[in-house]
Amino acid sequence: MTAHAHPVVLGQNQYGKAENRVVKVTRDGDTHRLKDLNVSVSLSGDMAEVHYSGDNANVLPTDTTKNTVFAFAKKHGIESAEAFGLLLARHFVDSRQPIHRARIRIEEYTWERLEGSGHSFARTGRETRTAQITYDGRAPEVLTGLKDLTVMNTTDSEFWGFVKDPYTTLPEDRDRILATSVSSWWRHAWTGGEADTPDWDASYDGARAHLLRAFADTYSLSLQQTLYAMGSRVIENRPEIDEIRFSMPNKHHFRVDLEPFGMANEAADGAVYLAADRPYGLIEATVLRAGAEARIPVDLTNL
Amino acid sequence: MTAHAHPVVLGQNQYGKAENRVVKVTRDGDTHRLKDLNVSVSLSGDMAEVHYSGDNANVLPTDTTKNTVFAFAKKHGIESAEAFGLLLARHFVDSRQPIHRARIRIEEYTWERLEGSGHSFARTGRETRTAQITYDGRAPEVLTGLKDLTVMNTTDSEFWGFVKDPYTTLPEDRDRILATSVSSWWRHAWTGGEADTPDWDASYDGARAHLLRAFADTYSLSLQQTLYAMGSRVIENRPEIDEIRFSMPNKHHFRVDLEPFGMANEAADGAVYLAADRPYGLIEATVLRAGAEARIPVDLTNL
Amino acid sequence: MTAHAHPVVLGQNQYGKAENRVVKVTRDGDTHRLKDLNVSVSLSGDMAEVHYSGDNANVLPTDTTKNTVFAFAKKHGIESAEAFGLLLARHFVDSRQPIHRARIRIEEYTWERLEGSGHSFARTGRETRTAQITYDGRAPEVLTGLKDLTVMNTTDSEFWGFVKDPYTTLPEDRDRILATSVSSWWRHAWTGGEADTPDWDASYDGARAHLLRAFADTYSLSLQQTLYAMGSRVIENRPEIDEIRFSMPNKHHFRVDLEPFGMANEAADGAVYLAADRPYGLIEATVLRAGAEARIPVDLTNL
Amino acid sequence: MTAHAHPVVLGQNQYGKAENRVVKVTRDGDTHRLKDLNVSVSLSGDMAEVHYSGDNANVLPTDTTKNTVFAFAKKHGIESAEAFGLLLARHFVDSRQPIHRARIRIEEYTWERLEGSGHSFARTGRETRTAQITYDGRAPEVLTGLKDLTVMNTTDSEFWGFVKDPYTTLPEDRDRILATSVSSWWRHAWTGGEADTPDWDASYDGARAHLLRAFADTYSLSLQQTLYAMGSRVIENRPEIDEIRFSMPNKHHFRVDLEPFGMANEAADGAVYLAADRPYGLIEATVLRAGAEARIPVDLTNL
Repeated sequence: MTAHAHPVVLGQNQYGKAENRVVKVTRDGDTHRLKDLNVSVSLSGDMAEVHYSGDNANVLPTDTTKNTVFAFAKKHGIESAEAFGLLLARHFVDSRQPIHRARIRIEEYTWERLEGSGHSFARTGRETRTAQITYDGRAPEVLTGLKDLTVMNTTDSEFWGFVKDPYTTLPEDRDRILATSVSSWWRHAWTGGEADTPDWDASYDGARAHLLRAFADTYSLSLQQTLYAMGSRVIENRPEIDEIRFSMPNKHHFRVDLEPFGMANEAADGAVYLAADRPYGLIEATVLRAGAEARIPVDLTNL
Repeated sequence: MTAHAHPVVLGQNQYGKAENRVVKVTRDGDTHRLKDLNVSVSLSGDMAEVHYSGDNANVLPTDTTKNTVFAFAKKHGIESAEAFGLLLARHFVDSRQPIHRARIRIEEYTWERLEGSGHSFARTGRETRTAQITYDGRAPEVLTGLKDLTVMNTTDSEFWGFVKDPYTTLPEDRDRILATSVSSWWRHAWTGGEADTPDWDASYDGARAHLLRAFADTYSLSLQQTLYAMGSRVIENRPEIDEIRFSMPNKHHFRVDLEPFGMANEAADGAVYLAADRPYGLIEATVLRAGAEARIPVDLTNL
Repeated sequence: MTAHAHPVVLGQNQYGKAENRVVKVTRDGDTHRLKDLNVSVSLSGDMAEVHYSGDNANVLPTDTTKNTVFAFAKKHGIESAEAFGLLLARHFVDSRQPIHRARIRIEEYTWERLEGSGHSFARTGRETRTAQITYDGRAPEVLTGLKDLTVMNTTDSEFWGFVKDPYTTLPEDRDRILATSVSSWWRHAWTGGEADTPDWDASYDGARAHLLRAFADTYSLSLQQTLYAMGSRVIENRPEIDEIRFSMPNKHHFRVDLEPFGMANEAADGAVYLAADRPYGLIEATVLRAGAEARIPVDLTNL
Repeated sequence: MTAHAHPVVLGQNQYGKAENRVVKVTRDGDTHRLKDLNVSVSLSGDMAEVHYSGDNANVLPTDTTKNTVFAFAKKHGIESAEAFGLLLARHFVDSRQPIHRARIRIEEYTWERLEGSGHSFARTGRETRTAQITYDGRAPEVLTGLKDLTVMNTTDSEFWGFVKDPYTTLPEDRDRILATSVSSWWRHAWTGGEADTPDWDASYDGARAHLLRAFADTYSLSLQQTLYAMGSRVIENRPEIDEIRFSMPNKHHFRVDLEPFGMANEAADGAVYLAADRPYGLIEATVLRAGAEARIPVDLTNL
């Protein structure tokens, strides 16, 4: 091979405007509705030259991608994060020849209407709903997810029968608190057909309900077991979802030793716990429909 | 006294263990209840010597104040943040002669039971409830409050008729979004009598409801007007509260200019807004029952 | 005055634009200098009407206060945070009759020039320098401070001889790590005279150096002793400073018990520590020049 | 196909204790040295059963992985993040048959000795050094990196010649501020030989110096060009590094329009800028040695 003129090459690259905070109000007489999104655009394609020489001839400015987000919110409204992301992804790829792939990531914050009011809202502060829409000119891929869904079981959790090596000091526990903050992404089987487009909101509500139900109903011998129960319940009950991945910290609640003060502190009697910050167990896994391909990246966190 | 033996003197000082994360579970058969607090202890009194020479003879270790928080949670349960803080404050002052004053600050995080479950919970993520209990051996002072209560009116807010100086460029607005994240402390009139102890939880729920109601019902010409409406409604309707202070950022939602793209973006039609981070207006004020003394510190934030 | 027409009254109030992130570049040929500030404006005065009725006739918009910050940075440059804050505070009070008091709070982020370059910089990430300038039309008050100055002594710290009550379990320690993240405000004696204006930058550098020197040189029997040593050293060596207040968390580094693994872990041999997050001791105190009035608020944190 | 006993299967999974905050002091007489790490352990292998049934027979508790981190810090010391991570990764895989792969992620915080002191230190607050060590029983892979390295060029940056589509409003700029906060991971060519083990600290210092040098020296027509210059300079000058990936937000500094106040604000004269938070451009790319395989994951951030 003669011609490696240069010993260094450019690999995968992408760019765009991140964290466009767009709020769309819809008025139906005195009753208003609200969509509150954080939209991040990432584009890739024929972009070698800008890296090598700074020639921007193929570069749609990130500022333009921002403008497009706001203009599209007005032009098309925001039906759901997924539908909005699809519009944006298709626009960038279909309208600019050098752009071969667009990835739109969206966080959605939910508000609830104050009782008796048409236009007053409070942030619920529940989990953040997430979506990632990728489009390469052929088939779109849609991931939906959530983060910061913090849940706790105050009983029906044990942990014993584990490996004891020379560094093991943890006592077995037959009645512990199990708490976690669920981060999850799930992949829709849908690949772009008009007819069979999922009802994104109904799908989200359904998946979320199954996650919570499985968390509550599982008598847990390990957080891994609970995670798998949550994932398999979603896969079994939501045919539109082929794959789901979780990153679930074990938010440790340590039963405090009160013996030095002459007090028992048994779980069965209602105990006092110390909610710890760090370190924490971190359990991560993918659950798949049999035969489905694993496509969700392994790392949902930067840890 | 002739001689300033030393040109430097010790002023106000306080110490204790901050951010004790205590979770107390109560079991009523299969139905569990949950209190989740972050408790910070601050003590002061006859503590000059430890500053001057490092003599710890009067110092109850901060580690001991931590132990006391957990032991008291077991011994007395946690009826409410305020009742728990009172127990702690009185204990420290009444049991250790050199401690003249205790201040307990508490954050409370709320969980809601998952439907159909006795022991499964999700963090609501709503506002954080706060309490500060101060006791000096005579009369306790109880402040209750909240933070991160994020609310928005999508209409019924105007801003015009303001001062124009040479640096004023802001256009008047007859239909804007008004959004804020309420931080508030309110002071209870109660000074320690057994008989007239407020029902702390009922009082919190009542005050919170009035804040939200006033936010929703006020046709606003300025965030200051809304703030005052919120405060006066609490004072008028909650006789147990004498004083309330607010720190309310104006979470700006700027109507995006879409004219360059040939689109109108009028509020009346349902508009698209950019939710901005910084800078932000910050409106702070105290509202008092006539004749009451202002005792809540002016600065709720560190800005 | 007979009649409390209204049972509710307005107390202390203030408003303005917070967190204006202003960066000023100065060019001296190819050598550039950089000031990077976060400026928060807070105004008060004759503002009752805007609270009661929403009448903005006395209200200079927070947007205007923002514009003023940026315009003044161009017009006057930014010599130091304190000098810039004084210009702003005097402007607001002297130019608008209804404004009786201005408080300017500033955070300053430091950058260092990359070696061999005139215009390339890296954020140092050291402590944040802070300033608060208050002006009421008569005498300005200037506080300077810092936060997030994280320091550690790996020896020369003991803790023993403390009170043992029934909740005390902490063992005495003759060789522990002492680490803290210093937050401090200090008050300048200066009250506005042209002639005796302090050199703000030299004063900051001097105070900072004394804080660090005292932290390093003090053989510590308690964090309170170290705090007082830091404060008294500043007061003794910087005649322009009359008062200094500290909020210093005890960033606990717990020596890990390795006996279960057959290993000693003595401080004298170089030990392994667990750096803990919460809870933490929190030590706060004011140190004053004898005869000076304590004017710095007691609460530097929101805990 | 008869035998899909179950329609749901387990995919990739991993677990361990995250964010073990370990501080190791080494004493050389009165001169102490300090290593301050945040270590996250992630293990995978023969772990299906714990997910399916909660059987923990193959599960080394995350608590044990935490103990191992602290015990190894004492037993072996911490020469560098990379060397320490290699020890841990090999231990877990080589000592427990069901564990097939270990990934150790480390953040390192740097402290600098206070002048004239042997045991007093201040956190530098510069960038965080990172490392990821993966071991599967055959060849280890070592990534080194950094995050939060915030840099700025106050001139020698232009942006023009870009695509104009119907949503483009950005004016061209011939003299702008270019600022970013560099996150980067680079991959070492080394695959485990004793003899050719890199000097990890020297390699880090070298790579960091080249990144900064390239940032400062590049006259930039786009952030992509600067990124590529940084990456290619590392690849060209550090033969031990085969691949490097960057995630670089464009920390926008907008030149403020002061014309309404009758002032010019030209870059050439030393201008005033607004440092913006969100949205921001985000530029990400990999740079490789020709012929090297791209193995660093594309997503360094969760956006």
